[in-house]
Amino acid sequence: MTLRIDATHDAALRSWVDSANPAASDFPIQNLPFGIFRRRGGPDAPHGGIAIGDRILDLPACLAAGLFTGLAVQAAGACGETSLNALLTLGRGCWSDLRRQASGLLREGDTRIRLHADWETRLLLPMGDAELFLPAAIGDYTDFYASVFHATNVGGLFRPDQPLLPNYKHLPIGYHGRASSIVVSGTPVRRPSGQSKADDAPDPVFGPSKVLDYEVEAGFLVGPGNRLGEPIAIGDAEDHLFGMCLLNDWSARDIQKWEYQPLGPFLAKSFATSLSPWVVTLDALEPYRVPAFARPGGDPAVLPHLDQAAQARRAGLNATFELFLSTPKMRENGTAPFRLSRANSRDLYWTPGQMLAHHASNGCNLRPGDLLGSGTLSGPAKENEGCLLELNRGGKEPISLPDGETRRFLLDGDEVILKGYCEAEGFARIGLGECRGLILPALAPAAAAAGKIPRGPA
Amino acid sequence: MTLRIDATHDAALRSWVDSANPAASDFPIQNLPFGIFRRRGGPDAPHGGIAIGDRILDLPACLAAGLFTGLAVQAAGACGETSLNALLTLGRGCWSDLRRQASGLLREGDTRIRLHADWETRLLLPMGDAELFLPAAIGDYTDFYASVFHATNVGGLFRPDQPLLPNYKHLPIGYHGRASSIVVSGTPVRRPSGQSKADDAPDPVFGPSKVLDYEVEAGFLVGPGNRLGEPIAIGDAEDHLFGMCLLNDWSARDIQKWEYQPLGPFLAKSFATSLSPWVVTLDALEPYRVPAFARPGGDPAVLPHLDQAAQARRAGLNATFELFLSTPKMRENGTAPFRLSRANSRDLYWTPGQMLAHHASNGCNLRPGDLLGSGTLSGPAKENEGCLLELNRGGKEPISLPDGETRRFLLDGDEVILKGYCEAEGFARIGLGECRGLILPALAPAAAAAGKIPRGPA
Repeated sequence: MTLRIDATHDAALRSWVDSANPAASDFPIQNLPFGIFRRRGGPDAPHGGIAIGDRILDLPACLAAGLFTGLAVQAAGACGETSLNALLTLGRGCWSDLRRQASGLLREGDTRIRLHADWETRLLLPMGDAELFLPAAIGDYTDFYASVFHATNVGGLFRPDQPLLPNYKHLPIGYHGRASSIVVSGTPVRRPSGQSKADDAPDPVFGPSKVLDYEVEAGFLVGPGNRLGEPIAIGDAEDHLFGMCLLNDWSARDIQKWEYQPLGPFLAKSFATSLSPWVVTLDALEPYRVPAFARPGGDPAVLPHLDQAAQARRAGLNATFELFLSTPKMRENGTAPFRLSRANSRDLYWTPGQMLAHHASNGCNLRPGDLLGSGTLSGPAKENEGCLLELNRGGKEPISLPDGETRRFLLDGDEVILKGYCEAEGFARIGLGECRGLILPALAPAAAAAGKIPRGPA
Repeated sequence: MTLRIDATHDAALRSWVDSANPAASDFPIQNLPFGIFRRRGGPDAPHGGIAIGDRILDLPACLAAGLFTGLAVQAAGACGETSLNALLTLGRGCWSDLRRQASGLLREGDTRIRLHADWETRLLLPMGDAELFLPAAIGDYTDFYASVFHATNVGGLFRPDQPLLPNYKHLPIGYHGRASSIVVSGTPVRRPSGQSKADDAPDPVFGPSKVLDYEVEAGFLVGPGNRLGEPIAIGDAEDHLFGMCLLNDWSARDIQKWEYQPLGPFLAKSFATSLSPWVVTLDALEPYRVPAFARPGGDPAVLPHLDQAAQARRAGLNATFELFLSTPKMRENGTAPFRLSRANSRDLYWTPGQMLAHHASNGCNLRPGDLLGSGTLSGPAKENEGCLLELNRGGKEPISLPDGETRRFLLDGDEVILKGYCEAEGFARIGLGECRGLILPALAPAAAAAGKIPRGPA
């Protein structure tokens, strides 16, 4: 299978939108990620747009202005909903056509948008004037565990005698996550309370988590689904994937350690999961496809339902994920956020296509808008470790920060900022935007116990 | 807290609907469960109704006929949707009022419904003419593990050295299930394929599960939700519960055994979960409330966020669940379905209120229509064991069936029928209806590998 490179990927392509300079923006014309937005304080319901530089192309407005033709008409029409789900249902032909036509409208020299007198407020809004939402109504969220480096590092802390379990190299381990508590980047995250038990304590206690962590992940949004009972062949898996987001799977390690056996993580994760608002499509990611992770000699061959030999040259993805921490003291001092983790999705032991095909291999139906998380992205080097638990060796080695601070785990007021980008020789750099969250203190025990209950819709 | 018994629970109450005789029907006038239906082949979209005997009270039609007043108007209006979610959002005041008014309309001597000439086809349809749907659009499905008998029995098979883990008696263990593959009773269940590894085999294989099981569970449907970050106090927990269903959490034990560590069950469960169509409200269940399970001496005291001392007399629920098997040979011979399991929810170590409060204790937001499963309902006696894995001791002791057959696990063509009912001295017997599923053979490997992909909405 060859790479599907077309004119939208041309590194020489420039947009007439000045801020879309690839040297300065995550969103040059080679990217064109999709998201859901509305004008802050405006009357419109949230709807679909494409990010370009520091602006948003309003897709239903462009449709109304007669700027799309053919398949893109259907695709832009589907973007009138409050989530991208209707668009996701349509499939790659429609998405690709809409992205191609948007590329044409935004290309240097094209004047069709600017022929409309109110284009700056109606067709191509400043992103700063917009409120961003979750890109999809996420029916089910599945979190995988696809980094062998993470699985080995963390497994060693929880199970020193057997870090990597016997199943790991035979199938992409995953589990169901909580969909209701997925929030868009910028939503503050309240420190959860829960049960935990110290190793030397006879009994557990209930209280605010003391071991709050982030997890750097790639999130993949599902496009067209499959019928219940009908698996998805590995060769078709990527036809069911729409694109990639940044995902921070916040984790309360003390709660996790106490609750996770035998059924897996539950409340240690379900208090919040943060997702970036802009979904970079598989189309845009095409130039950054790479071979899947090279399994070390001696690793088992994959079974046929996971065998990507036919996609071997492009089953992986070269995307860099960087996580930055900004503490209250750093913000006070004007110190720039400090990079803690830097990992690449090419180091994942299992590819996105393998995760999806495995998920459906038992006949489980995926639906448009479902979210697949890669699991914590870690790599072979120390700086590649994608969570604090790994970086500080289970809390044993505090991390030194600028301004003389140290951290074992996240403190109240810390802000965590996840970013990502793709680079490839001969192609423009494209970015994934950011996924950020500020840690709020736990509710006071009295308030927590009082359990403020909203009586209406929540 | 006293029991909330009112005139709707009066054992002497009779309905003018003949088939609603408590001796013969799960749905006497003391029950009045809610569900979603539509006339088979009719033009209407699915909408809300109440079961009475062998008929369904069409709630939007009764509203249109002017048969409701006050809060019930709002509640019946919410039943015009294709799921009960809008009704669930309204809260107990509205549900209760609608149920009370429906009770009045159906009471012996009341003629208001029959004053309408077409009442038999418009207001009170034969259930046999209706198609039944899932009662709710289930956002998140959480499965607990609340039977200490089940946890001990199954834990002993998977971990003979430590059947019950140290956390079990301190918190209700649970995990996220798959929402997309929850199907309504009557939907056939295709045998899943997946990876499994025999103990004595060096490597896993991929193929149809050979160890297909059922799990008898109580399902609880969430009413009003809570805001993300705001726990629900244990004393308020039941205000967030709408009612109870029958739930069969189909399980492929060979897939489960190989995949479940370290993150819990995944594809072993996500191929299908069956739910009964009629939701028996907490109001209807009021006479069958009992004290919570008596913790044996020496068991730890519960922490305050799970302490139901104030609800002690009514925190539990006396409901009997019975599971019947019907094999192709039994159907051919005209042999009645054979009862395999018989358990009672009063034997659950954790109550529904404790499961819900624990779930929200970290600030996780529950939403109307979320589903909580109890986990397999087993009790102290052999006949109380709620899955085949327990009944046959991990496959070692085949079960004898009528007509000379035996079963270790489910075979293609087997039909599993889950029923349930509540009885209490001085009150009518009410039933939960049934939750049934017929096992279809696995897809042929070629078809499975071809992965028939629907390209549109699935």
